[in-house]
Amino acid sequence: MSTQEINRRTVDPAAAEMLEYAESAKMSTAWDRYKAQQPQCKFGLTGVCCRICIQGPCRIIPTKAGMDKGICGADVYTIVARNLVRYIAGGASAHSDHGREIAYTLLAVAEGHAPDYKITDKDKLMRVAKRVGVETEGREVLEIAKDVAIKALEDFGKYDHDPCTWLYTTIDEERKAKFKQTTIAPTAIDRSIAQLLHQTHIGVDADPVNIIFGGLRAALSDYTGMSLATDITDILFGTPVPVLTEANLGVLDPEKINIAVHGHNPLLSQMVVYAARELEAEAKAAGAKGINLVGICCTGNEVLMREGVPTATNFGSQELAIMTGVLDTMIMDVQCIAPGVKDICDCFHTLLVSTSNIAKIPGSYHVEFKEATAMEDAKKIIKLAIEQYAKRKPELVKIPPYKKQVVGGFSFEAMMDLFGKINPDSPISVLTDAIMAGEIKGVCAFAGCNNQKTVHDDPGLTIARELAKRDIFMVSTGCMAGAFAKAGYLSSEGVEAYAGPGLKKFIKRLEENSGLKASLPLVFHMGSCVDNSRIANLWTAMAQNLGITVPQLPFAASAPEAMSEKAISIGSWVISMGIPTHVGVLPPLEGSELVYGVATQIAKDVFGGYFMFETDPMKAAEIIAEKIEKRAWKLKILKETAEKYNSSLALVYEA
Amino acid sequence: MSTQEINRRTVDPAAAEMLEYAESAKMSTAWDRYKAQQPQCKFGLTGVCCRICIQGPCRIIPTKAGMDKGICGADVYTIVARNLVRYIAGGASAHSDHGREIAYTLLAVAEGHAPDYKITDKDKLMRVAKRVGVETEGREVLEIAKDVAIKALEDFGKYDHDPCTWLYTTIDEERKAKFKQTTIAPTAIDRSIAQLLHQTHIGVDADPVNIIFGGLRAALSDYTGMSLATDITDILFGTPVPVLTEANLGVLDPEKINIAVHGHNPLLSQMVVYAARELEAEAKAAGAKGINLVGICCTGNEVLMREGVPTATNFGSQELAIMTGVLDTMIMDVQCIAPGVKDICDCFHTLLVSTSNIAKIPGSYHVEFKEATAMEDAKKIIKLAIEQYAKRKPELVKIPPYKKQVVGGFSFEAMMDLFGKINPDSPISVLTDAIMAGEIKGVCAFAGCNNQKTVHDDPGLTIARELAKRDIFMVSTGCMAGAFAKAGYLSSEGVEAYAGPGLKKFIKRLEENSGLKASLPLVFHMGSCVDNSRIANLWTAMAQNLGITVPQLPFAASAPEAMSEKAISIGSWVISMGIPTHVGVLPPLEGSELVYGVATQIAKDVFGGYFMFETDPMKAAEIIAEKIEKRAWKLKILKETAEKYNSSLALVYEA
Repeated sequence: MSTQEINRRTVDPAAAEMLEYAESAKMSTAWDRYKAQQPQCKFGLTGVCCRICIQGPCRIIPTKAGMDKGICGADVYTIVARNLVRYIAGGASAHSDHGREIAYTLLAVAEGHAPDYKITDKDKLMRVAKRVGVETEGREVLEIAKDVAIKALEDFGKYDHDPCTWLYTTIDEERKAKFKQTTIAPTAIDRSIAQLLHQTHIGVDADPVNIIFGGLRAALSDYTGMSLATDITDILFGTPVPVLTEANLGVLDPEKINIAVHGHNPLLSQMVVYAARELEAEAKAAGAKGINLVGICCTGNEVLMREGVPTATNFGSQELAIMTGVLDTMIMDVQCIAPGVKDICDCFHTLLVSTSNIAKIPGSYHVEFKEATAMEDAKKIIKLAIEQYAKRKPELVKIPPYKKQVVGGFSFEAMMDLFGKINPDSPISVLTDAIMAGEIKGVCAFAGCNNQKTVHDDPGLTIARELAKRDIFMVSTGCMAGAFAKAGYLSSEGVEAYAGPGLKKFIKRLEENSGLKASLPLVFHMGSCVDNSRIANLWTAMAQNLGITVPQLPFAASAPEAMSEKAISIGSWVISMGIPTHVGVLPPLEGSELVYGVATQIAKDVFGGYFMFETDPMKAAEIIAEKIEKRAWKLKILKETAEKYNSSLALVYEA
Repeated sequence: MSTQEINRRTVDPAAAEMLEYAESAKMSTAWDRYKAQQPQCKFGLTGVCCRICIQGPCRIIPTKAGMDKGICGADVYTIVARNLVRYIAGGASAHSDHGREIAYTLLAVAEGHAPDYKITDKDKLMRVAKRVGVETEGREVLEIAKDVAIKALEDFGKYDHDPCTWLYTTIDEERKAKFKQTTIAPTAIDRSIAQLLHQTHIGVDADPVNIIFGGLRAALSDYTGMSLATDITDILFGTPVPVLTEANLGVLDPEKINIAVHGHNPLLSQMVVYAARELEAEAKAAGAKGINLVGICCTGNEVLMREGVPTATNFGSQELAIMTGVLDTMIMDVQCIAPGVKDICDCFHTLLVSTSNIAKIPGSYHVEFKEATAMEDAKKIIKLAIEQYAKRKPELVKIPPYKKQVVGGFSFEAMMDLFGKINPDSPISVLTDAIMAGEIKGVCAFAGCNNQKTVHDDPGLTIARELAKRDIFMVSTGCMAGAFAKAGYLSSEGVEAYAGPGLKKFIKRLEENSGLKASLPLVFHMGSCVDNSRIANLWTAMAQNLGITVPQLPFAASAPEAMSEKAISIGSWVISMGIPTHVGVLPPLEGSELVYGVATQIAKDVFGGYFMFETDPMKAAEIIAEKIEKRAWKLKILKETAEKYNSSLALVYEA
């Protein structure tokens, strides 16, 4: 492959090396399959293909009489809106179902049915219990845990008409009023999803704006599900604190038994961490120097955040981890596990183990993972990996020598601890004061996937570099955090290389006071995809601290390589919360100017947040920075006005 | 239009006449839009286009290297299975959400918040309460009603792991064991839908069989939702009894104010019936001879069954009803309302009124319908229709002179009453004895939609004629009942014209004992789409009466023109229940031989039911008859064996 071709594929040096190897060894990867799919169907790409009933498919050509509507008479805006919100339904279902499993586990712990789990963070349990209205006074921990679990499970299926608890206890009054006014507050997660499918069934809703509002309700369910997932995961496994680790394929160790945890739900991957520690001797008895656990995708982020497990790679390059020839076992839980990994496993000795009863890959080895036998299941899989080690083929070992230091573990609480070292009375003020003082311009949160429509990892890195120069503070989750990790942006290397003077000063001040041994990173890793709820906590705290609304904050989000339905769902609640959100890939909505306009313009009038679609990373950085800087400028002017007239910021904004 | 072209479009004489008119008046209909969409995309038609993430669309060509899998590596069987079960999710959401609204209304009645509704059928309330485990002894009706409503609402979102109440209290022990064994019994309707979306999200399940089982779980939720919808609708508005009415566009009355109720949920349409009676004088004061309510689609079936409201037409021809120029108002609730009706309304004076907050059509007049103000809302709409009457354009009036008598109202209870006139001790034996005696061969249930891929109404009529000849007893629901209604098959005209000697004898015997004034029909109208639960009650009663399992019954189903996601969902639970099911349109699953094979073959081994896809109605009739006759033959042989050895039928089957 030419250098030019490689550069079109990835900016990750490990991935680049493995892609050349893949080509020489004639192994097909997602990059090859993407190329084979070109050119992609324009109807599908722009959202104007309708397959909602089986009279279709209907492909709309708005300019062609007779083809300007579907067979049922659905206009292009109806079709594009329906297709779009069904992505949200898919995403919300995935995130929330993950949360549901976590909540069931907390219930099982409380009821004594999950002996391998425990309440690790009692303080967080108490904080959450108080917040969601569970009585704590004079009660046993497990009683409280049970009520919190039930409260969470009720958010999925309760039939009263009150908004979901995890939504309404984590946002500010202004957003509550906004969601009430726009009738998009879900009363139950599953109901909002099922009702959205009903709304988009043939012959139900033809009104695109109404459909989009139904979609936003499901998107807020997505938020609700991930918010409770984060809370309860912290309760079960501990709330992350800063941790030092590494990232990229170089973390694989040729002398150890390498096991990758891949997927999203930490119920298993966390058990694998515990089990691996216990089975270290068995690994050594098998001739290895020990067990080397690595993470891929968000289950990797979960164990990185809490246990310092290194990240092997992110979504786009998952197949390449197997090609190193040293991955003895890949353990799947749920979500974003490309079925393509199986074909690559077949070229090596890697055992692919599926564990969820809703996520199997034909030909993989299935070990059903149950909360009641979690440790036993985890050990069983690790023992399989130890057996597998003997089958490794030395001639196929090829580990690209790239890895970077990572300082991760920045939960919302960890951020507040960090800020609290400077201002113990009002930790969040450390961030907002820096903005008001102009030291930093605002905050940008990076989230989302890899997408073959971009150069792997490049858009996020490019945007982050540009924003860093412009003194914008950055946080990240998900596979974007993976991209940053592999490029050294999650360590001080990133600060030295890219931070503008203000941002550098701000980070260094935090660092000096941190009491941590490691230097602080350019981008703060806040966790997995479901941990975008932590980022929402951050902006809510900032707005409350400043006495303004979220849409007035100099805060933006970016999903430079959005790929999954989950990403669309997250983006939709983020804009509903009032955050301008860049997406670096065009979702299929260009087919309707109306829907495109609602997403990029009208949403701003209603929610304050809106989408910015821009596939050129340099342009995207410009746009994001401009939005943040404009809000920061406005905030500063209004603060001066407020001080002049001895008024509050909120009143000045209203005026 | 040539006669040949008309014959390719419809066999309904009223529709044929209106289609010629539409052409001459240059009004575009679904038929024209279908033609404009030809040729349709083969990837979409065969289920091999994947748009589940936005790296796609991926279009699979199994024979072409590189394009044989999606970008993520998903195989064609994964893609086809995922697309298929997402149809089921859509269908289950629609049916169940309809049921949810009905359950909420019962709760409101019980709590005194819905003054215009009442408990009409107390006996059914008591029967249902006892069946679902609600205490009835010594309790007030409204207390019981409240508990039944809550039990129903809990079936949507409860978080325990018990199967849904409305599923497990309406099927036999053998099916319960089967669903338990195959782990497809849903524990909550909404959860099964949300979880299915999760399962089919990118990177979750790649195993087609596992995906299909997830789909069947959602399909059983579809059944659960419609089962509780039927029960509670009967409780609120009365359980249907035989009723005499008419069908086809000829039921529109040029001298009256014509109002069509269109959609599915009877909460509004039933109120419109009551309100229309009260506003008769106002209509006369406006110069009309009164109010003429007519039904379209299943909300029409609901008021036909309970109130004898005539059917104007079915799904495929809904636009044509407006072209008569005498339809003053079309009232929409939810589902199967083609947005194309708005364009036709614009050519006439017809006011299109939307009433649901999840079903709007841009440009229509919206009167939000609420259970608390139901009668007021219904009256408001009728008054709008009365105003509209003055705007009618006499030069545009064109009512095709076709209508047929309809004898409808055959709820399961009404069927049992009818059979009970002959055998009061064991009503169902009248049906099973006739089968065992060979007088009739078995039962075929018709359900489902119209689909432009067929000749409108023709497949159902053709199959029914052929099955009638072969002495197969027939029942129907939904838009197929509409087709039969318009063709006279729901009256004795059908019996005289088409019934074979055995079937005729059987129907005449029922008729002589019925005590009804009207003659009995060839096909028994059992209600709307959600009333397919009544048909399930029928086959369960038959199997229990014979001491056999449902898959052993000579009972088949046919959806000759399946169109909606709901139809796919119904078909899926019908096969799970053990019923061979013909579908006259190819759903998008031909792209995977594996998935096609599971649907048509493997399902038989597991559930006893399976799909038979056949687009030629004559061939379909042959196949359906053969399946029924084979089961009847086997049943008869085994009964003889059982008698010979003094054993039970169940034991002989097992042997």
